[in-house]
Amino acid sequence: MDAASFEALNAETLGPRLGGLEALRARLGDDPSAWRVREVGDGNLNLVFIVDGDKGSVIVKQALPYVRLVGESWPLPLKRSFFEYHTLARQAARAPGQVPEIFHFDEQQALIVMEFLSPHVILRRALIDGRMLPRIADDLALFMARTLFRGSDLSMQTRERKADLALFADNVELCDITENLVFSDPYFDAEMNSHTSPQLDGLVAQLRADRDLKVAAQRMKHIFAARAETLVHGDLHTGSIMVTETDTRVIDPEFAYYGPMAFDVGMLFANFWMSYFSQSGHEQEGNRDAMRAYLLDVQERCWNGFVAEFSRLWRTERNGILYQKSLFEEQGDHLGAEQALGEVLREIWVDLLGFAGIEIHRRILGLAHNADFETIEDPDMRAQCEAKALKFGRQIAVNRAHLNGMKEANALAALIETGAVA
Amino acid sequence: MDAASFEALNAETLGPRLGGLEALRARLGDDPSAWRVREVGDGNLNLVFIVDGDKGSVIVKQALPYVRLVGESWPLPLKRSFFEYHTLARQAARAPGQVPEIFHFDEQQALIVMEFLSPHVILRRALIDGRMLPRIADDLALFMARTLFRGSDLSMQTRERKADLALFADNVELCDITENLVFSDPYFDAEMNSHTSPQLDGLVAQLRADRDLKVAAQRMKHIFAARAETLVHGDLHTGSIMVTETDTRVIDPEFAYYGPMAFDVGMLFANFWMSYFSQSGHEQEGNRDAMRAYLLDVQERCWNGFVAEFSRLWRTERNGILYQKSLFEEQGDHLGAEQALGEVLREIWVDLLGFAGIEIHRRILGLAHNADFETIEDPDMRAQCEAKALKFGRQIAVNRAHLNGMKEANALAALIETGAVA
Repeated sequence: MDAASFEALNAETLGPRLGGLEALRARLGDDPSAWRVREVGDGNLNLVFIVDGDKGSVIVKQALPYVRLVGESWPLPLKRSFFEYHTLARQAARAPGQVPEIFHFDEQQALIVMEFLSPHVILRRALIDGRMLPRIADDLALFMARTLFRGSDLSMQTRERKADLALFADNVELCDITENLVFSDPYFDAEMNSHTSPQLDGLVAQLRADRDLKVAAQRMKHIFAARAETLVHGDLHTGSIMVTETDTRVIDPEFAYYGPMAFDVGMLFANFWMSYFSQSGHEQEGNRDAMRAYLLDVQERCWNGFVAEFSRLWRTERNGILYQKSLFEEQGDHLGAEQALGEVLREIWVDLLGFAGIEIHRRILGLAHNADFETIEDPDMRAQCEAKALKFGRQIAVNRAHLNGMKEANALAALIETGAVA
Repeated sequence: MDAASFEALNAETLGPRLGGLEALRARLGDDPSAWRVREVGDGNLNLVFIVDGDKGSVIVKQALPYVRLVGESWPLPLKRSFFEYHTLARQAARAPGQVPEIFHFDEQQALIVMEFLSPHVILRRALIDGRMLPRIADDLALFMARTLFRGSDLSMQTRERKADLALFADNVELCDITENLVFSDPYFDAEMNSHTSPQLDGLVAQLRADRDLKVAAQRMKHIFAARAETLVHGDLHTGSIMVTETDTRVIDPEFAYYGPMAFDVGMLFANFWMSYFSQSGHEQEGNRDAMRAYLLDVQERCWNGFVAEFSRLWRTERNGILYQKSLFEEQGDHLGAEQALGEVLREIWVDLLGFAGIEIHRRILGLAHNADFETIEDPDMRAQCEAKALKFGRQIAVNRAHLNGMKEANALAALIETGAVA
C-alpha cells in the first residue's frame, strides 16, 4: 500500500473519482454526475458514504490513515480495509447471505464498495428502542457457528489456514486496540478511561482492586493473544449488526484475526446482557419487562442454536486435521466424536463467559462506551444500570468454569437485575 | 528459494564449493584442498558433514528436497533449513550458550555451517549407555524456560511476535509430520505404523479402542495446532541434545513453529520417561537401579528448575502485553502477579502431561521409534519395557488434570515399572 497516493474521498470527489467503475455504474446508473452522495457520520474509524443513483444505492467505505473520531493524533493503518475486505469475502463463503455483498475493493485507496442495506437499522439502536427482532437469535447463531467452524482446522485445509493466519497476523494495530482497551485499561486508572462518576467510583475502585478479576481478565487476554483457532470477526457487538424483521447482516469486520472461537460469541452475548441491564433506563415510554424476557430468550436461543449448528457441522463437515474421522467414526466410534465435541463446546462456553464479562467492563469503564447505557440521560439511573452490569460481568468472568449453561447465567443476570442479589 | 539452483553437497564437492567462504577458512584453514570431509550418516532428514582442517572443525548441515532416510518419494521443502537457521539465531539470543554457534547460512543451498561440538555425544545414546550426566536437568530447565518465556507475548514486543508467527506459519510440512505422526497415526492402523509384534498386539488394540485416550490425543493436537504461544523447538527429544559432563547443547530445531509452551517440555519429559522404562532392557552389564533413580531425579530437578527460572523471568522480564505489571506490581498487587503465574504454570503442567503421554505412544506405535527401546534386542524384553511405557503414557495423557506434580507422576512411573500396578 503506497500511502502517498492515498486520497480521502469526500461527497464532491466521490462521483468524479469512482464514476468510471463498472461495478458502481451497473448499480447506480451510468451518469456519475447524477449520483447523490451523503457522508454518514456514524463511523468511529472510517469514512462511510451512501451513494444513490437512479438505479439503486451503494455504500462506499474508506479507511483513513488515522482514527476518524480522534484525528491524526491517533494513526491507524489503511491496511485495515484490506483485512475487512478479505474477511467479508471469507464470511460470505462460510455464512452465505449474512454479510453485505461486496461490489468493488481498491486496496490502494483502502476503499470498499458494498451493498446498501435497506431498510436495515443497527441492532443496538433497535434494542434501545425496545424492538423485538424475531430473527436475530437464530441468524446470529448460524453466522457464528458457520464462520468459526469453517475458518478453523476443523474444516479448512491446514496449509490454507496457516497461510491465512500469516496474512492476518499483520493486523497488529487493531488487535492492539482490543488488547489494550478491552483487556487491560479498564482494570487500572488508564488515561483514556471514563465512567459515570461519582456514582460508580466506589464500585470501580473495588473492581480494580479485585485480584481474581484482574487475573481472569489477563487470562482471557492470554487466550485472545495466543489461541489462533479460527478467523474471528473481532468486534461482534450489536453495533456491528444490521437488522430488519426478516434479515440479519454482520458488518465491519476490520478487527478480524485468527483468535479463539469463544471471542465473537462472548462479545455478542455481552452486548445482549448489556442491553438487558440497560432496559430499565429506557422505560420512559413503557415498561420493558417483555423486552427483558425477550433478551434472555435471545441469549438462550442463540447459544442453543450455536451449539446445534456447530454440532451439525462437527458431524457433517469435520474434514480438517482436528479430531479426524479416521480415529472415530471410521472406527465405528461415533460416541468418541461426540465426547470430543462436548469438550470443545465446554471450552467455548467457559471462555465466552470470560470474554463476555470483560467486554461488559470495558464498555462501562474504558474508552468506548455503549449507546445502550450512554443514552440513559439521568446519571443516577445510568449508574444503577451500569453497576448491575459490572457486577454481573465480574461474576461470569471470575466464576466462568462454574456456571453450567445459559439458563444459569441468565438466572444470575435476573437475580442481579431484580436486586435479589447485589 | 529457487529449487533449480539447489545442489546437494557431497564429500568431494564440499571443499571446492565452500572453500571461498571466509567463515570456514577462518576456522579450518585457508587451503580447502587440505580439508577432510566426512559425511555423518545419522540424520533422518538431512545431509550432515564434519569438516576438519588444520585450525579446527565445523559441521555443515544441508537439507535435501526430500526425507533423506526415505528418498525422493517423500518430498520435504528445503525451507526447513531457513526455519532451523532462524530458530537457532533466536535461541542463541534467548538462551545464550545452549545451541551451537552458527558460522554461515546459505538459504539458496539450504545449508548451515555451525560449530562442531566435541567431545559431545547425543544424550539419548548416553542414557542408553547408563551415563548419568550431571548437568542436563538444570541446563535443559534453563533452555526451556528461557526460550519459551522470551519467545512469547510475556516478553516480546507483540508486533515482532506476530511478524515472527507469520514467518514460521509457513513451516507447514514439518508441522504436518508432527500433526499426523505424533497425534493421529498411533491411534489407528495407519500405514506407516509399526510396533513390536505380536507381543504388544493386545495392548495396542486396547489403546486404539480407548475412547478417552483418543479424545485426549486429539485435544492435545488441537492445542498443538491452535495455540500459537511461543516459538517452540518442536522436536525436543533426547536425540536433539548433545552433552558432555559439563555442557548441554540443543540442536536440530527445524520443526520450530509458534506453538504451546508445554510442547517442548512434554516431549523432553516423555523421552526421559521412555529412557526410564527402557533401562531394564539394558541391564546385561549391570543393574540399572541407580540409573532409574537418576532419571526420576532428572525429571524432578528439570521441572523444578523450569518452574524456578520461568518464575524468575516472570518477576523480572515480564515486559510484554500479557499480565502487564500496570495491573499488578504497579498497583502494589504482587500477589496478583503470583496468582496469574500459578495459573500459567498449572496450564503448562497439565498440557505437558498430555503431550508427554502422546509422545511416548508415537515412539512405540508410530513410524519413528526410539533407540532406547529399539536397541533392546530381545523382543520379549523390549515389548515388556514398551508395554509399561504405553500404560504410563495412557495414564498421564488421560488423567493429566489430576496428577498433582512431578513427584506423583514419577511415583506412578515407579509403580508401573516395578509391576506394583499393571
